Amino acid sequence: MDLHPADIAEVLPEVALAQRVRVMRAAGPEKAALILYELDRDIVPPLLEALGPKRLAEVLNDMSDDDAADILGELPEPQKDQLLSLMEATEAADVRELLKYGKDTAGGIMTTEYVSLKEDMTVDEAMATLRQMGTEVETIYYVYAINEQAQLTGAMSLRELILAPLDARIEQVVNRRVITAHAWDDQEKVARLVAKYDFIAIPVVNDDNQLLGIVTVDDVLDVLEEEATEDILKLANVDAEGQDLVETSPWQRATRRLPWLIALLFGGLIAGNVIKEFSGTLEKVTALAFFITAMAGGPGNAATQSLALVVRGLATGEVDQRRLLKAVFKEAQVGIIVGLVSGSVLAVVAYLWQGETSLGLVVGLALAINITISTMLGSFFPVIIHRLGADPAVASGPFISTLMDVTSMFIYFSLATWLLL
Amino acid sequence: MDLHPADIAEVLPEVALAQRVRVMRAAGPEKAALILYELDRDIVPPLLEALGPKRLAEVLNDMSDDDAADILGELPEPQKDQLLSLMEATEAADVRELLKYGKDTAGGIMTTEYVSLKEDMTVDEAMATLRQMGTEVETIYYVYAINEQAQLTGAMSLRELILAPLDARIEQVVNRRVITAHAWDDQEKVARLVAKYDFIAIPVVNDDNQLLGIVTVDDVLDVLEEEATEDILKLANVDAEGQDLVETSPWQRATRRLPWLIALLFGGLIAGNVIKEFSGTLEKVTALAFFITAMAGGPGNAATQSLALVVRGLATGEVDQRRLLKAVFKEAQVGIIVGLVSGSVLAVVAYLWQGETSLGLVVGLALAINITISTMLGSFFPVIIHRLGADPAVASGPFISTLMDVTSMFIYFSLATWLLL
Ligand SMILES: [Mg+2]
Ligand SMILES: [Mg+2]
Ligand SMILES: [Mg+2]
Ligand SMILES: [Mg+2]
Ligand SMILES: [Mg+2]
Ligand SMILES: [Mg+2]
Ligand SMILES: [Mg+2]
Ligand SMILES: [Mg+2]
Ligand SMILES: [Mg+2]
Ligand SMILES: [Mg+2]
Ligand SMILES: [Mg+2]
Ligand SMILES: [Mg+2]
Ligand SMILES: [Mg+2]
Repeated sequence: MDLHPADIAEVLPEVALAQRVRVMRAAGPEKAALILYELDRDIVPPLLEALGPKRLAEVLNDMSDDDAADILGELPEPQKDQLLSLMEATEAADVRELLKYGKDTAGGIMTTEYVSLKEDMTVDEAMATLRQMGTEVETIYYVYAINEQAQLTGAMSLRELILAPLDARIEQVVNRRVITAHAWDDQEKVARLVAKYDFIAIPVVNDDNQLLGIVTVDDVLDVLEEEATEDILKLANVDAEGQDLVETSPWQRATRRLPWLIALLFGGLIAGNVIKEFSGTLEKVTALAFFITAMAGGPGNAATQSLALVVRGLATGEVDQRRLLKAVFKEAQVGIIVGLVSGSVLAVVAYLWQGETSLGLVVGLALAINITISTMLGSFFPVIIHRLGADPAVASGPFISTLMDVTSMFIYFSLATWLLL
Repeated sequence: MDLHPADIAEVLPEVALAQRVRVMRAAGPEKAALILYELDRDIVPPLLEALGPKRLAEVLNDMSDDDAADILGELPEPQKDQLLSLMEATEAADVRELLKYGKDTAGGIMTTEYVSLKEDMTVDEAMATLRQMGTEVETIYYVYAINEQAQLTGAMSLRELILAPLDARIEQVVNRRVITAHAWDDQEKVARLVAKYDFIAIPVVNDDNQLLGIVTVDDVLDVLEEEATEDILKLANVDAEGQDLVETSPWQRATRRLPWLIALLFGGLIAGNVIKEFSGTLEKVTALAFFITAMAGGPGNAATQSLALVVRGLATGEVDQRRLLKAVFKEAQVGIIVGLVSGSVLAVVAYLWQGETSLGLVVGLALAINITISTMLGSFFPVIIHRLGADPAVASGPFISTLMDVTSMFIYFSLATWLLL
């Protein structure tokens, strides 16, 4: 049992439940706490059940409070309440406090286990406090100065503390301009702050600037991973919540995708109905059917390119409020370029393939228009959604896709009816 | 000028070049170094040009060596050599060393500015060393023990150092089981290690276990962001390299997307050629055309869902070697479920819409088969590419998309010819 908890957590899903329970019991509460937190979420509930509430409460006592809150937050009310009542009173109180915040907020990912100092302490006294609290807190690499009202008045790194004269008072050496997160800030915003300023931890305050906790960089790494996964899956039209590629059952996985597939299917059928409206044209020029797949696919692909760039830009903050319009305007220009080039290529290929100038003209012109529109839409739509305060990655895909399928077919067959008949 | 360098870097792209130069000169080399590193890559070259080589060399001296290597690594050879010759000899030597490694490797993101200790030092002496080197190194929160051959023999955190008795020798308190990265490891692998073990820094060694540098968690955050962006853009068929949503010109942006759009266009035309081969069938049953958009879109969407899940799972390590086959097998089951459900829905809708049982049967059966195949393909294909040692996110999309367009049309019209004529 000399393995790192993260390594044990990695092999545990491979063995039987009884074996998992044996490992957790043998590890002792403190190590079991670390293993439990690293485990894939899907295998946690049966393991908790098997460990039994008393043992489990011991493990939770030894877990850092933010991690304990994460685990308890996913349990049903009665089980959660039972465990909280079995835990040590002070630990349970910390965890109850954290459970008040939404799980994707600063409060939801912060820990209350940090070092705070009074301003009139000396550096020497501060170091003594650190030595004493060193094993209990999540990090000692930042210390926070607070006043009688528990308001944050300053912060400094352990590096700065070590370099300061031992007899200096904290108030003389502490940094006054502290960048903070608010308890209800979205976790992604907090993560961006930590990444931007290269912090190891960031303090979390309430409306009265009282220090509530800190968010540490290891949790920020997890947040960025989680948010990136969420965006990738949303862009691919998969419900991101709780997707585990190996442990969830095929039925569960299918239900996360089917609603989108069916929605997109109806989108395709609406476009099909446009074709039906033009079936007179199609019957006269059967060759029009040979271009439907290219004509339906191209604009969708162009919209996806633009959509992915803008959604990612909004997520990383590269496209911020100031640059929103500029980004959309640039994408519009890109749309015209890629539209003209793609349309020209198709026109030439269609002419060479079918040997008809007018047909080449129609398919080329239609594709140029459709790709230009869809590129613009792919950047404009997520920006609008973002301005409305919603997540631009959600459902942009199916909506744009359906809209473009329908528009593309309409423009294609309208041009054909007008120019070929 | 009391702003944080990261904040200055954020507004600098908004002002004219002359103004940018003025800000950089006013900031002094040390702060200018921090600003420069945070700037969007696209606006760096003209700024460097305008600052002039002498001034620039001063700024690079004051930059941490890994950041200086990043900036110099992107400059043309002659300019890079000129700047290196103008820099301080020791700084230049550090940077030259780092430039030997690929920019996406552990060596390419490590810094040589860390604290190493001899094993026979006392904790007290070690703390004195820290105080002395504190401002020069990237982090003092980990210290590394090395022997005469510069080999890594142990590591400990500053937290552990502070809690150790002052007269203990390093050899008595240092951790022997150190998790290391190899200089040529891919940066993504290094980032995963840091995320997994919640490190603040990880040591980088060569084949002889000599300590070459450390990778710090702030750079790991950047790596994870970069890799996630890369994967999102690749899945959306955009060349990821150097994409900036606002600063690059529309022409540059268009050239990053057009090759994929054109390739996909030809894919659509190959599928169109399949339709042409079956034009006899189509002329007899015009209604078949009304389902082409749904029939071409559905399998593509299903493949994208599966592809995104597997590519992301491979990137985060959730789908590791042991679980590869299990993941593919699960996806195959999901494919059957979503295929059957989508196909049934389409069959019923087609019957209600067109009032023909046999047509409903044909389109439903074709969609069920096509979605099942494409879901399987979407998981199988990236796994194969991964096993071949390539990046599964690259070019999976267009290939699968084209293959599925062609297959879908073939199966659809073959079934129609067989069952309806
Ligand atoms: Mg506590
Ligand atoms: Mg939490
Ligand atoms: Mg950073
Ligand atoms: Mg934590
Ligand atoms: Mg943690
Ligand atoms: Mg998000
Ligand atoms: Mg989120
Ligand atoms: Mg140096
Ligand atoms: Mg580098
Ligand atoms: Mg972690
Ligand atoms: Mg660095
Ligand atoms: Mg990658
Ligand atoms: Mg990479």
